[in-house]
Amino acid sequence: MAPLAVMVAQAAWAAEGMWTLDNLPRAALKAEHGFEPDAAWLSHVQRAAVRVGGCSGSIVSGQGLVMTNHHCVTRCLAELSTRQRPVKAAGFLARTPKDELNCTGLEVLQLQSERDVTAQVQAATQGLTGEAFQKAEDAVRARLARECQQGQAATRRCDVTVLYRGGQYVLQQYERYSDVRLVWVPEDAIASFGGDPDNFNFPRWCLDAAMLRLWRDGQPVKTPVHFRVEPEGPKAGELLFVPGHPGQTQRSLTVAQLERVRERLATQGIPAASESRGLMHLLSQRPEPTRTWALQAMGGIENGLKVQQGQLQALFTPDLWSMKQAQEQSLKAHVQAKPELRARVGDPWADIERAQQVRRAMEQEVGLIAEGGAFSAPHFQYARTLVRGPLERAKPDGQRLREFSESSLPAMERRLKANTPMDLAFERERLEWSLTRMRSVLGPDHPVVRQVLGASSPAQLATQWIQGSKLHDAAERSRLWDGGAAAVELSADPFIALVRAIEPHALALRERFEAQVQAVERQAAQRLALAQFDRDGRSRYPDATGTLRLSFGTLKGWQEGAVAVPTHTTVAGLRGRHTGAAPFALPASWLVPGAAMAGEVPFNFVTDHDIIGGNSGSPMINRQGRWVGLVFDGNRHSLGGSFFYDSQLNRAVSVHPAAILQSLQFVYGARELADELLKGEPQAR
Amino acid sequence: MAPLAVMVAQAAWAAEGMWTLDNLPRAALKAEHGFEPDAAWLSHVQRAAVRVGGCSGSIVSGQGLVMTNHHCVTRCLAELSTRQRPVKAAGFLARTPKDELNCTGLEVLQLQSERDVTAQVQAATQGLTGEAFQKAEDAVRARLARECQQGQAATRRCDVTVLYRGGQYVLQQYERYSDVRLVWVPEDAIASFGGDPDNFNFPRWCLDAAMLRLWRDGQPVKTPVHFRVEPEGPKAGELLFVPGHPGQTQRSLTVAQLERVRERLATQGIPAASESRGLMHLLSQRPEPTRTWALQAMGGIENGLKVQQGQLQALFTPDLWSMKQAQEQSLKAHVQAKPELRARVGDPWADIERAQQVRRAMEQEVGLIAEGGAFSAPHFQYARTLVRGPLERAKPDGQRLREFSESSLPAMERRLKANTPMDLAFERERLEWSLTRMRSVLGPDHPVVRQVLGASSPAQLATQWIQGSKLHDAAERSRLWDGGAAAVELSADPFIALVRAIEPHALALRERFEAQVQAVERQAAQRLALAQFDRDGRSRYPDATGTLRLSFGTLKGWQEGAVAVPTHTTVAGLRGRHTGAAPFALPASWLVPGAAMAGEVPFNFVTDHDIIGGNSGSPMINRQGRWVGLVFDGNRHSLGGSFFYDSQLNRAVSVHPAAILQSLQFVYGARELADELLKGEPQAR
Repeated sequence: MAPLAVMVAQAAWAAEGMWTLDNLPRAALKAEHGFEPDAAWLSHVQRAAVRVGGCSGSIVSGQGLVMTNHHCVTRCLAELSTRQRPVKAAGFLARTPKDELNCTGLEVLQLQSERDVTAQVQAATQGLTGEAFQKAEDAVRARLARECQQGQAATRRCDVTVLYRGGQYVLQQYERYSDVRLVWVPEDAIASFGGDPDNFNFPRWCLDAAMLRLWRDGQPVKTPVHFRVEPEGPKAGELLFVPGHPGQTQRSLTVAQLERVRERLATQGIPAASESRGLMHLLSQRPEPTRTWALQAMGGIENGLKVQQGQLQALFTPDLWSMKQAQEQSLKAHVQAKPELRARVGDPWADIERAQQVRRAMEQEVGLIAEGGAFSAPHFQYARTLVRGPLERAKPDGQRLREFSESSLPAMERRLKANTPMDLAFERERLEWSLTRMRSVLGPDHPVVRQVLGASSPAQLATQWIQGSKLHDAAERSRLWDGGAAAVELSADPFIALVRAIEPHALALRERFEAQVQAVERQAAQRLALAQFDRDGRSRYPDATGTLRLSFGTLKGWQEGAVAVPTHTTVAGLRGRHTGAAPFALPASWLVPGAAMAGEVPFNFVTDHDIIGGNSGSPMINRQGRWVGLVFDGNRHSLGGSFFYDSQLNRAVSVHPAAILQSLQFVYGARELADELLKGEPQAR
Repeated sequence: MAPLAVMVAQAAWAAEGMWTLDNLPRAALKAEHGFEPDAAWLSHVQRAAVRVGGCSGSIVSGQGLVMTNHHCVTRCLAELSTRQRPVKAAGFLARTPKDELNCTGLEVLQLQSERDVTAQVQAATQGLTGEAFQKAEDAVRARLARECQQGQAATRRCDVTVLYRGGQYVLQQYERYSDVRLVWVPEDAIASFGGDPDNFNFPRWCLDAAMLRLWRDGQPVKTPVHFRVEPEGPKAGELLFVPGHPGQTQRSLTVAQLERVRERLATQGIPAASESRGLMHLLSQRPEPTRTWALQAMGGIENGLKVQQGQLQALFTPDLWSMKQAQEQSLKAHVQAKPELRARVGDPWADIERAQQVRRAMEQEVGLIAEGGAFSAPHFQYARTLVRGPLERAKPDGQRLREFSESSLPAMERRLKANTPMDLAFERERLEWSLTRMRSVLGPDHPVVRQVLGASSPAQLATQWIQGSKLHDAAERSRLWDGGAAAVELSADPFIALVRAIEPHALALRERFEAQVQAVERQAAQRLALAQFDRDGRSRYPDATGTLRLSFGTLKGWQEGAVAVPTHTTVAGLRGRHTGAAPFALPASWLVPGAAMAGEVPFNFVTDHDIIGGNSGSPMINRQGRWVGLVFDGNRHSLGGSFFYDSQLNRAVSVHPAAILQSLQFVYGARELADELLKGEPQAR
């Protein structure tokens, strides 16, 4: 890796930044690209770029057609797959709207409006610290969201997002679409061609695309605001935009926090994911349906592991530390030089450093017990929701655990009652392993370990619990939820008993962590933001928060050692990489003589957009607002993007529109769908 | 963890140090304990304390009886175990010498003499650097060992050990015993009671003991020099000694090297071991014999993982870094202050730092390809030995790869031809996984990955190779070895083909690593040793090297947070920890009414001896040379002992002689064996 310090210095703005739409780097955009987005352009982008679960997406026709990544809907595909209709393996095409399949639990959100509520939150939390601060902040956020939602939970969602780690609070109002149907996906083998080996690498060849449709009241939703597809894709040198929902970056963390992140990745995150990977590898050799569930889990685990490894790699780069230390010193010096500012800011770095000591001491326990990592079966989370539900719902909204606030309840209840399939054999294995890990990490003499395991082995308990529980059944869960405290109290379900037994310890841990770590970090970050705003104004973008952002960039390869990595891959390259053995095996549909796409058709391409996990499925658009690509990945250098953006190496990877359009036409016999993309309306079928 | 810097300063010598027998801290021993070991005492210790494979052990009767740990002989136990005679699970007792079972491949070494050969090595390497240095050093070490061995490979072994990382070279001559037979072991369930959860923890209750006997010419070996067992065990405050063979410490590494160790543990060692652990967990659910092999592998993996985790934890302790930096600065200052010394020493720290960059760039590749980590089946190592053997044996001794030197050849040939059992189903799984990891780590476009995988998947290749190879058969391996180049060239064995294919790349990597990393580090370490000797004389002990050392200490508990950990556990405590579920299940022999050992019989105990992996099986003796304990573990703080010794926390864990003697008498019906231990001679049976 080239020296970061140099790069960061030379990058005027380069393509760095995940900008909020109300605070774009307008001067730079105008100076460098002669581009000045007007309100209409921004409003169009805001409505056509949507959130799809934890991913991004875009509306691409007037009839509610949504484009996102195949890998963003794999959970739905696994749930829809049956022996007769193996959607995940074989792909799917709905010939008519009534053939479209419901993706239960998948939600599409369309941002309607945003409002700064910093003053309200600050007024409510003024003068408080620790637990009191945290509770007051929860309460005011819950109230603002509830007021915004106006009882229309089915079609509206409101969130208070924390920007600049506490420097700004923004209330977002979304249109909520919860009847989302599957229109088309290609086979898993071409969607994730190259599998884990090629993930976060480039050159790459993935048709990582899926099409969904928004429905409401038994009809496809009319969406006059949408992006029209430009089949030529992006042009060299052209300014390109990625509106999307980047999930989380950690660029504004202090050095002490980054050190803690590094240690946690090395001692907790990566070892745990690595163990799971070994486990899933062998579980995926079991008979169906366990095999399919294990492969499904494996996809997420391997992806997460690569992300964590990339982050850890970045955190072992000496230049990163010199850069971060220099930035920290510079802001400290700014504060020191202004006595009035110094009086208001104090020493947030020291407060944060102390909170890291608490993190270090309790983070494993919080993850395993308070967050339930030790009990890795959906039954446990269901049981916890059922046990807590009646108690929390009896409290005034502002005093509840935040996931039980009025604005959050509808989604929680829907998840609880949804008829989500699971494989009990698979869950038993995962549960046994997570119990074993708990004992290994916390030690056999930890009070909760003793209480939970008693005289039994993890294997015995996992079997007993899974066999003895009815919580895999949505009807039973609904009965307990609707029956309230009385029904839950009568239940002898082993997972409910487990939750009850460890609840005092779990809640105490959560409270302590919120008061001594999260509240301290939040309040310190607010003072850091104060110092930064004082010095830089609003010239910087906030860390990613899963909310709508805009990134800028152009087509650009990079230099990997001695190799110049090109901007595009093609169909010819894909055929060259086909070996016949997974994950480098093209599906049968691509091997029949009729599937004759020209070798030079572009497949995937790279740009220097600043993106991160959550941006998957984002549209790439040009200044005319035409859809020119589907973001689905970053190169491996982009993983360090959690901590800094490196303009020379950090790249986003997208599917080219030609690959989608031509495969629809020539491989999948879906000419009508291609026409809907090209013309913005469904064509005669 | 308490501040290290404080502790290190206050520790005059405390119990720190793994001392060579020719350089004991005599002044401190005399001043603090009034103890002055004479030549007879030392000579007795040197002969009665033996090396047992990669572990330690001791001779405990006049008839060649050797005591070591159960966990040091598990490989032998797994190999001896059959359905009819499940030695590992059920334990074993030979009623008469002729019932003793041969532990093929296990070797016991008894140190006869040591000689400083620094001058010879320096003369041979004078003025050389890089590859030339490395080759010259290999050659002179091979020559010295060969001359010492005098052609008596069957009964003599000679090694040149590098102390102070190059500051001193010592030629050791050992008596070699290769007919080693199993006399007694308890059941696995009591030997490793508490399993992985209790490993490196205390309080602990393990009967981690095994007894072997040395044979030669069809007779038990007469061993007049041996330790006599003291049934009372150690007394409070008594000065105690651990003579043993600590394997490796890293206390004299520079800060740059320690940083590299930390990164390697976090990014390579721990993730790889964690994946294996997940894999083995499920493999151990397969039918026999795969289950047994997986459990056997799991033991080693879990132990290694804990060691690495403990080391990484230590390397995330800020105090460690301040201490190491201060030590480094102090030695640098000493060199700077003496121009003549400075001229000879130069800047070894900078040379080492540069070598770490090379390590960082190539270490993964070296591990996977040059060391064969990508091909995790014994077949591969056999094949490599077979391919290289004829070529290396044709060269003069000093020019060969060091594992083919005349002094090393006998052991290599014995291993190759030994009838070591293996489970092909198990090996296939492990091989598939290691091929998958290779692709994941090096990427699908690495030239060796492309060459090896071609158009096949790891699963396909693992199956083809394991099914197509005959190298699991000792007769086939012997045929190829004895047939030399001609036989190997004719072989179409897939593993031999694989070795041939990657050999140019593998050898080039090895050469580059030796020249640019190992030779550089060795030569820099020699100059560091020069500086250190100049300042401190020989007052410091060298890093552990698997050779005989003496540690000192006393019975001592420690303070773990608010808890004062006691020195002993007892039989009553063991019964209290028995739950009936593995790994906390006592074997049946301990549950019958007759097995009535008194509750107060001591079981395990802790002392502050400075030990490390390799010390397992070491005797603990008192100043009268009586055997008072069997070292088998350290507490978790001792894992940081790779980098520093912390007298307040670092503890060794041993089996008490009463637990061994009384269980022999009351549980295992082995009164004669107990008598042999007590009286030093076998008693009438």
